Amino acid sequence: MARVKPRTPPGMRDFAPVEMRQREWVISRIRAVFERYGYDPIETPSLELFETLKGKLGDEGEQLLFKVLRRGTAIDELRLGRVPSVTVTDFNEVVDYALPYDLTVPFSRFLAMHTDLPRPFKRYQIQRVWRADKPQRGRYREFYQCDVDVAGTASMLADAEIIAIVVECLRDLGFAEFTTRIGHRKILDGIVEAAGGQGHLSDICIAVDKLEKIGAEGVRAEMAMRQVPAEVAARVMEQVAIEGTMPEMLAHLERSLAQTRNGPPGVAEARELFAILAAMGVPAEHYRFDLRLVRGLDYYTGPVYESVVSTPPIGSLTGGGRYDELIGRFTGTPIPATGTTIGLERIIDVMQELGMLQTAASSTQLLVAVFDETTRDAALGLAAELRRAGLRVETPLKETKGLKSQIAYVSEKGIPLIAILGPDEIAAGTVTLRAGPGNQRTVPRARVADEARGMLL
Amino acid sequence: MARVKPRTPPGMRDFAPVEMRQREWVISRIRAVFERYGYDPIETPSLELFETLKGKLGDEGEQLLFKVLRRGTAIDELRLGRVPSVTVTDFNEVVDYALPYDLTVPFSRFLAMHTDLPRPFKRYQIQRVWRADKPQRGRYREFYQCDVDVAGTASMLADAEIIAIVVECLRDLGFAEFTTRIGHRKILDGIVEAAGGQGHLSDICIAVDKLEKIGAEGVRAEMAMRQVPAEVAARVMEQVAIEGTMPEMLAHLERSLAQTRNGPPGVAEARELFAILAAMGVPAEHYRFDLRLVRGLDYYTGPVYESVVSTPPIGSLTGGGRYDELIGRFTGTPIPATGTTIGLERIIDVMQELGMLQTAASSTQLLVAVFDETTRDAALGLAAELRRAGLRVETPLKETKGLKSQIAYVSEKGIPLIAILGPDEIAAGTVTLRAGPGNQRTVPRARVADEARGMLL
Repeated sequence: MARVKPRTPPGMRDFAPVEMRQREWVISRIRAVFERYGYDPIETPSLELFETLKGKLGDEGEQLLFKVLRRGTAIDELRLGRVPSVTVTDFNEVVDYALPYDLTVPFSRFLAMHTDLPRPFKRYQIQRVWRADKPQRGRYREFYQCDVDVAGTASMLADAEIIAIVVECLRDLGFAEFTTRIGHRKILDGIVEAAGGQGHLSDICIAVDKLEKIGAEGVRAEMAMRQVPAEVAARVMEQVAIEGTMPEMLAHLERSLAQTRNGPPGVAEARELFAILAAMGVPAEHYRFDLRLVRGLDYYTGPVYESVVSTPPIGSLTGGGRYDELIGRFTGTPIPATGTTIGLERIIDVMQELGMLQTAASSTQLLVAVFDETTRDAALGLAAELRRAGLRVETPLKETKGLKSQIAYVSEKGIPLIAILGPDEIAAGTVTLRAGPGNQRTVPRARVADEARGMLL
Repeated sequence: MARVKPRTPPGMRDFAPVEMRQREWVISRIRAVFERYGYDPIETPSLELFETLKGKLGDEGEQLLFKVLRRGTAIDELRLGRVPSVTVTDFNEVVDYALPYDLTVPFSRFLAMHTDLPRPFKRYQIQRVWRADKPQRGRYREFYQCDVDVAGTASMLADAEIIAIVVECLRDLGFAEFTTRIGHRKILDGIVEAAGGQGHLSDICIAVDKLEKIGAEGVRAEMAMRQVPAEVAARVMEQVAIEGTMPEMLAHLERSLAQTRNGPPGVAEARELFAILAAMGVPAEHYRFDLRLVRGLDYYTGPVYESVVSTPPIGSLTGGGRYDELIGRFTGTPIPATGTTIGLERIIDVMQELGMLQTAASSTQLLVAVFDETTRDAALGLAAELRRAGLRVETPLKETKGLKSQIAYVSEKGIPLIAILGPDEIAAGTVTLRAGPGNQRTVPRARVADEARGMLL
C-alpha cells in the first residue's frame, strides 16, 4: 500500500499529553464554576441537519459551515468509479448535515425538543465547534467552546448571574486584569430611533461594532458607505460616546431616549442588571457599562457582554448576550434565554503567552523496574499489588535490557519513583524505592505502598 | 423567518443532564483504570483528510465515512443560487475531509507526526467517531470510543497489559460475568497454511469470524461460497474446534503447526501472553484462549481480543489486537502497536438494561430562596458567600412569586437544601435551613455554611 503523508487538516490540531493535561486543567476550573452556580452539563451531536444551521449566519456566513455529503448519492458512485461524472442541480439533494459553528443554535434546537426539563433550564456545554475560516495564528477551524446559558426567564437575574460566572471563571483561572464590557441592544435601538435612523439599525450596528478596531472616524466612514445619513450618524456617535458614572449615564439615557420605543425598557433593564451585579458582590473593576458594545450576531435582543484582557491585546475571551427570540424559531413560541461562550482556545493561548499554565508531568507515580528475566513475574505481581493499593504504576513494556533504559524512560516521562525488586530483595522480602540519585531506601515488602506514598509527598 | 422543525440527525443523540452524569461517571471509572496503568490522554481532530482514512476499510466500507465538502467549490455556488447546476468529474475535487470511523487510524497518523514522545508510547483517547451505518437499536451513527494503546514495542507484555486493563475496566464498572476471548492471527495463519489454504486466508478469516453467529454449518457454507476448497475448509474447522486446557491446546498447535511459517511464532507468543497474564494476577475466569476469534479488520497481525458479557447477549463490549504494520503506512517504517477499543455506548446500554447505573440528582446542594423583593439583595449576597465557602448554590432566576414556585423547582431538580433569609432572619442575624417538611433549623448567619454541610451529609 502506498505511503500516505501524515497531516492534520489545516487549522485543526492534535493534542499530545502535555497539552491535554493543561487543557483538562483549564476545563476543570471552568466546570467547577459552572457547577458552583448549579448549571448542568448537556451534549448535542457534532452534526446538525443543514436546515437547522442555515439562515442564522446569512448567505456568506454559511460559507463558514463544513457541509457533510449525503450518503449513497451519485457522488459516492463517482468515488467508486461507477459513473464518469455527476450533475448536481439541487444542493439539498447532496448535503445532509453541517458541523455547527457555535453551541447556541444547537442548544436552541435541543430546548425545542426537550420540553420536560426544569425551567428555568440552566445548562453548560463544553464541545468542539467548526468554522471553515481562513486559518491564522490563534484562529482555528476546529475549537472548543464552553457555553453557559439560562433559558426560560426574561429576568435580569439571569443575565447578571451569567456575567458573575464569567468574571469568576476568569479570576479562578488566574486572570487579574480584565473587564467585562456590558452593552444593551434595546438601548442601542433607542439611540438609533432617537437619531432618526430606524431604517438603518442593522448597518449602524455593524459599523458601531467596529469602533474599538477602526476608531470613530472609521465608523463614520463605514456608516456613510452604508448609506446612513450623515446627521443620523453624527447623532448616534454622539450618544454612544457619552461617558460618566453608571448612574449618570443611565440618567442621561433615560432623558434622551424617553420618546423611543425600546430606550426606556432598555435603560430600566440596565439599571436592574447593575443593581443585581452589585448585590451579588461581583467586583466593580471587572465590569463596565459600554454603549459601544454591539456584538456581531443578529439574534441578540437585550444585554450583550464580552470580556477582554488588556495585556496581551488579544481581543475578547468571552462573549454573549440575551437572545429571546432564537429558540422560538424552532418552537414557534419564544423562550427567553441568555448566556455566554467562553473561548477556550483563546484563553489557553493567552495563558500560554503569559506563562499561567503549569506543565504537568506524567500522572504515573511509580515504575516497578524489571531487574532481569528471572524476576519479571515478581515485578508484575508487585505492580498489580500497588495498583490495588490505589497507586498509578507502570512496568516496562519492552523485553528487559537492564535497568539503564528503564531509568532513561522514567526520566523522560517524569515519573518520580522507581521500585526495584531484584533477587536480593526477593530473598529478603524487601523492595528498594528510588526517587533519584542518593535518595533511595529498602523497605519491607508489606510496607511498600505506604512508603512509596510517603516519598511521593 | 419560517419555523424549522427541531430534529437531530438519525442515529445521533442529545444528552440531557441525567444522561450526562451517568456517562461522565462511566468515563471517569474507565479513565481512572487507564491512568492507574500510566496511560496519558491525547486528542485528534474530528476531521481527518479523506486520504488518511481511505483504503483502510475497502471500497464498500468507505461508504461508512461521512465525507465533508470542500469549501468554496461550485457546489457552494449552487447553494447560493449563482449557478443552475454543477458537473462533478473528480470526487477529490469536491471532498476534503471525512469524519473518522475509529480512533486507531487517527492514532497511527498522530504517531507518525509526533516522533518526540517517549517510547513505548502509552496513550488513551476518549472521543466521538462516526459511521454512516443504518441506524438501529443500540447502533448509532455518532458514538464514543475509549481507546487504550501502546506503540513502540512488539513484546507480549504490552498485549497482556491491555487485556489486564480491559478486565479491570469491566470489573470496576461492576460487571461480574464476562469473558475476554483471546485469539492470535499468526496461529490462524498457521492453521490455514497447514490446511493448504494459503491463497484463501482472507476468505477463511471472514467466514470463521462468523462462527459464533452462524454456527459451524454456516461457516462451512460461507467458505464454499467463497471458493475455499472443501478439504481445506474441513481441516480449518477441525483445528479451530480443538478444546482443552490452555497448555493442552498450545501443545497440540505446536505439533500440528510445526511446519508452517507463522504457527510456531504465534504459539510462542500465545504461551508468553498467558504466562504474563497469570503473573499479573488477571483473574483466570475473565479470559480464555479462543482460536475462533478473528476480528474483522484486516490490519491485525498478532493477538486479537474482545470481551463479551453473557447476559444480556449484546455481543462484544471491547475489541482490539496487535497491528504492527498500520503505523508504517504513514511513517514508512513499521512501528509495532497493540491496543483496544472499549465501546462506551454499548457498555452504557448494557448497564442501563441491567440497572447498574445510578440516576444522579442535580449537583446543586442548596437554593437560597428569595422571600420577597425587599430581601432579594440579601439573598444574593448570602449565595455569593456560600459559594465562596465552596458550596454549589442556586438562587431563583425568575422574579419572585413567593416561596411556592421555588419549592417546586427545588423538588423537581432534586436540590436537597433550601436557605431562607426572610425579614425576621435578617433582623435576628440568622438563616433558616430547610431539608424537607419538618426538617429545618434556624442557625446563626456566621455558621450557615458549616450547618448546611452538616445537613448535606
